[in-house]
Amino acid sequence: MTIDTDPTFRQATRDDLPELIRLFADDSIGGHGDTTDPAALPLYESAFAAIEASPNDLLFVGVVGGEVVATAQVTFITSLTGRGTRRMAIEAVQTRADMRCKGIGARLINHCLDIARQRGIALVQLTSNAKRPDAHRFYERLGFEKSHAGFKLRLEPVRAST
Amino acid sequence: MTIDTDPTFRQATRDDLPELIRLFADDSIGGHGDTTDPAALPLYESAFAAIEASPNDLLFVGVVGGEVVATAQVTFITSLTGRGTRRMAIEAVQTRADMRCKGIGARLINHCLDIARQRGIALVQLTSNAKRPDAHRFYERLGFEKSHAGFKLRLEPVRAST
Repeated sequence: MTIDTDPTFRQATRDDLPELIRLFADDSIGGHGDTTDPAALPLYESAFAAIEASPNDLLFVGVVGGEVVATAQVTFITSLTGRGTRRMAIEAVQTRADMRCKGIGARLINHCLDIARQRGIALVQLTSNAKRPDAHRFYERLGFEKSHAGFKLRLEPVRAST
Repeated sequence: MTIDTDPTFRQATRDDLPELIRLFADDSIGGHGDTTDPAALPLYESAFAAIEASPNDLLFVGVVGGEVVATAQVTFITSLTGRGTRRMAIEAVQTRADMRCKGIGARLINHCLDIARQRGIALVQLTSNAKRPDAHRFYERLGFEKSHAGFKLRLEPVRAST
């Protein structure tokens, strides 16, 4: 694998939001309905504010030549199991279509793993859509074990009155 | 399915910890190395304190006849994808061995889903060990779709100096 780009990784800022939205809007497989329509911007702004305010979440961007070309969100979860295991869950991993196969995604995940090690995390976990066999091989090459099945249930949200 | 018990669900308190540890220690498939050895208690106490302090985590117990017979932890995660989706991740689901097949687990998950609906959550997710086909059918009966593969990576923790 040739790495002909040199990404740097840092936490996302509010100014990265338009480029982040474009990354997600370009993802056809995930089918999350993301859009660069300005009418949706307040929803993304609100989500960004929630992530920024959460003590247990970090949103990373990978930058090449001043442009955001990759992203991943990590969530720290402490659970009782495993004598009180501290986990890192990785979500919303994306690399810009024209920047794939350059090792940027692997560096991004390794950046997350470095953060995990620094924080004494024992277990890193993520799920990947069954429609992405390439992604599954990618995670296995990075040392992940496909030991679990990932289940999702979409709810029709009913806003609470409180 | 006969429901011959009538569980109630509430958030766990510190006093539930010994019964919770026993639930996890009895889980042979998960292989998380849980133990009722008193020497490990401080680890569980520390984890419980972290969960209690987290604004994004809730730890539930199911109680029958004054005894903790089931538990699940939920973590709320806001992500940018899906125009700012608010997710609930369910972790560490257990029902005491002698209380299985009584519908308690289904009620516990439905309790989590009720909380999700109250909070306007759009997506509920969990992973289940590939060695638990019964659990997979259980989640599918509850409406979950096995759309993803779940990857785990164990790290040797290195405590950060900062």
